[in-house]
Amino acid sequence: MHELLKKKVLEANLDLVRHNLVLFTWGNASERDPETGHIVIKPSGVPYDEMRADQMVVLDAEGKQIEGDLRPSSDAPTHVVLYRHFKNIGGVVHTHSEWATSWAQAGRNLPAYGTTHADYFYGKIPCTRPLTQEEIEEDYEVATGDVIVATFGNREYESMPGVLVHGHAPFTWGKDGREAVHHAVVIEEVAKMAFRTEVLGNRRSVDQYLLDKHYLRKHGKNACYGQHKPPTL
Amino acid sequence: MHELLKKKVLEANLDLVRHNLVLFTWGNASERDPETGHIVIKPSGVPYDEMRADQMVVLDAEGKQIEGDLRPSSDAPTHVVLYRHFKNIGGVVHTHSEWATSWAQAGRNLPAYGTTHADYFYGKIPCTRPLTQEEIEEDYEVATGDVIVATFGNREYESMPGVLVHGHAPFTWGKDGREAVHHAVVIEEVAKMAFRTEVLGNRRSVDQYLLDKHYLRKHGKNACYGQHKPPTL
Amino acid sequence: MHELLKKKVLEANLDLVRHNLVLFTWGNASERDPETGHIVIKPSGVPYDEMRADQMVVLDAEGKQIEGDLRPSSDAPTHVVLYRHFKNIGGVVHTHSEWATSWAQAGRNLPAYGTTHADYFYGKIPCTRPLTQEEIEEDYEVATGDVIVATFGNREYESMPGVLVHGHAPFTWGKDGREAVHHAVVIEEVAKMAFRTEVLGNRRSVDQYLLDKHYLRKHGKNACYGQHKPPTL
Amino acid sequence: MHELLKKKVLEANLDLVRHNLVLFTWGNASERDPETGHIVIKPSGVPYDEMRADQMVVLDAEGKQIEGDLRPSSDAPTHVVLYRHFKNIGGVVHTHSEWATSWAQAGRNLPAYGTTHADYFYGKIPCTRPLTQEEIEEDYEVATGDVIVATFGNREYESMPGVLVHGHAPFTWGKDGREAVHHAVVIEEVAKMAFRTEVLGNRRSVDQYLLDKHYLRKHGKNACYGQHKPPTL
Repeated sequence: MHELLKKKVLEANLDLVRHNLVLFTWGNASERDPETGHIVIKPSGVPYDEMRADQMVVLDAEGKQIEGDLRPSSDAPTHVVLYRHFKNIGGVVHTHSEWATSWAQAGRNLPAYGTTHADYFYGKIPCTRPLTQEEIEEDYEVATGDVIVATFGNREYESMPGVLVHGHAPFTWGKDGREAVHHAVVIEEVAKMAFRTEVLGNRRSVDQYLLDKHYLRKHGKNACYGQHKPPTL
Repeated sequence: MHELLKKKVLEANLDLVRHNLVLFTWGNASERDPETGHIVIKPSGVPYDEMRADQMVVLDAEGKQIEGDLRPSSDAPTHVVLYRHFKNIGGVVHTHSEWATSWAQAGRNLPAYGTTHADYFYGKIPCTRPLTQEEIEEDYEVATGDVIVATFGNREYESMPGVLVHGHAPFTWGKDGREAVHHAVVIEEVAKMAFRTEVLGNRRSVDQYLLDKHYLRKHGKNACYGQHKPPTL
Repeated sequence: MHELLKKKVLEANLDLVRHNLVLFTWGNASERDPETGHIVIKPSGVPYDEMRADQMVVLDAEGKQIEGDLRPSSDAPTHVVLYRHFKNIGGVVHTHSEWATSWAQAGRNLPAYGTTHADYFYGKIPCTRPLTQEEIEEDYEVATGDVIVATFGNREYESMPGVLVHGHAPFTWGKDGREAVHHAVVIEEVAKMAFRTEVLGNRRSVDQYLLDKHYLRKHGKNACYGQHKPPTL
Repeated sequence: MHELLKKKVLEANLDLVRHNLVLFTWGNASERDPETGHIVIKPSGVPYDEMRADQMVVLDAEGKQIEGDLRPSSDAPTHVVLYRHFKNIGGVVHTHSEWATSWAQAGRNLPAYGTTHADYFYGKIPCTRPLTQEEIEEDYEVATGDVIVATFGNREYESMPGVLVHGHAPFTWGKDGREAVHHAVVIEEVAKMAFRTEVLGNRRSVDQYLLDKHYLRKHGKNACYGQHKPPTL
């Protein structure tokens, strides 16, 4: 089942490689079928250059494996938590991309230092608190999802399609796998430029009105970027 | 109309990709027809690998679209302002190239730390002041052009073919699109080296006489670089 | 003899090039035959693009050359010492990869700043003390092996498959040449991210329980990563 | 004349591109014919992808052009000075490679922080003093050569095959063009690693006995690296 979706999920995973966001098997992309709520995700530990669409694993909305001979990505429970709480998303990506991961390892929110950031992320990209020993030992991957959800609280997740997990790495999301990959590329690029901006002496975020202008130029009902396509997530 | 110019503008845009100056659709190159003053610019949001010459958009000197089915780059009004005020230029480029953008995000002028810089830019590359809330909310892209023009004031723009827009990214120009691209490559390279020069402990620009020697060796009536070609812009 | 092993060792050496870990001939990979204890290593100073399997050099367990027309890598004696003391390893790699070498040149242990590190290295990656003048002048390559062994003392070498040699560069190991190469790739990646983590202001390692969780998720009898493959070294 | 040498010089110039040491036409390699003392160098400002062997320019030992329709590299007079004073060299390379140039722009000697450096450069790589206004205005390219020669004084140039020109960029040399290119690659690599070593907190060079060991392992009458080839310059 979900043959088309499996192909899309395979492509999303391969796009992570094409954008130099993953080394070896360190990354995973998934997508949710809007009708059934099933989640299609890549298998664990299979090299990207051998991966086939029919190896994709299907989970139900609670994360129970309902199709596939292989085990799903070990991060699958985190994806499941994100889909459950962020109702409008259709794709999730996790990488250890080098710049975003460096910020996650530093345990820091990623400030909005410029319009590149503002075009996609409406404010600073949050870094979660560290997990407690109990959370790590009991149900680590679920706790990773929970701490992301707790970090957002009542904050809107659609205008902030990514997060840094403390001491770990980024997760991003979007309306589908392709958009989640897109956001994984952007978070890496703005993490790189923010690093250099700080070394050059600035730690002040852009003004709120510049943030508004750029974010709202590309998103929402008054978007004026591109060819009148419906606004993205 | 302007079929040849459309091909040149397409090539200039693709050169930005070849030089790794753009991610996704984050960049734009335009060129001005010297006879009519018309401006040919790429469409907004079209992926580079699908872009065709016949999709280029033609604007008149006031920025009114006079040909093309697609909407022009959302930065087109900024290009129009630059062409209006910088009479001798024939090409404009905007990118979010990573090193130059990091300086723009830091809100800093880019100092002339060596002869590589001096070969192309006759002094420090200026960073504009931040735009005010009013400027951003009223007519943002035009205001971006205006603040660049204001930054130059009476300063010569031909010997300083680029600028950093505060919190945003670089714009460069030249006698045509190809030269504007060339300057976009150079601003990125010197931004990268200037960053490292500062980390290594130097914040003193080169001496004025070294700047004179290198800039004037390549430009102006006494240029002695290359094969006796007419001096570039 | 060892024709198959020679092919594997050639491939391991070429993988170092494919992963951008070596410039020119600066690197070497070897593998130990489990039955005879013979060591197969690349020849010294032969360009990678001309290297053939039949040029691999065979040494006995004491490092005496027993086959091959060419001289072995000048670092061969270091490999021999590592095989002698680290009984369970089957492959050794040495590179001057740029980020790990920068840490070695700084004479610093490489801290575990995140889960990427914890997935492969169970704690900080040690940097040896500097060699003394006497050690360098008497039997330099053997002394390099000895100082690595001394750095480990009674510490387990299987959960810490790499080291930084002070003022020099990294060595890594694994159950075979392929795994030693894998660890050489990972040490470079975590060295790069740790550098940036520190510049971003953090010098605190991950909590021990997070280290435990990630390392033991991939290694040992309770590993749950991948497709139930036998745990790697 | 010198048809074979012209091919070698073309290849040396193209190798600079292959090793990512040059942008556009920013670099030049030359070689000296040992019998006649003639110098073959690339023409000025010709794009690398169009350059042909028959475009190489021949100069006599005093720098007078004796063959070629095109003008030689504008840096030719610097090459001529180096050949005149450094009797045993056969090749010279100049680039604006990004890391070495950053050190030159910082006006700093490049310290020997590790064995990679010690394998090729016997001590810190010197940075010249800045040129005076008079030197720059009177005969700039010759003065650049003169300040390099003055920096070396009585110091041996064969064990230190490179220099950083203050505020400008590196020059390297060797027994032929190929070796000069090799040293240009190495100076870039060690400049990169030295930068990172300093940021990681170390500014102490390697011990003299480690420098001796590594340099003399590869060079001079007791060299033991590679396949018994005659020691390189």
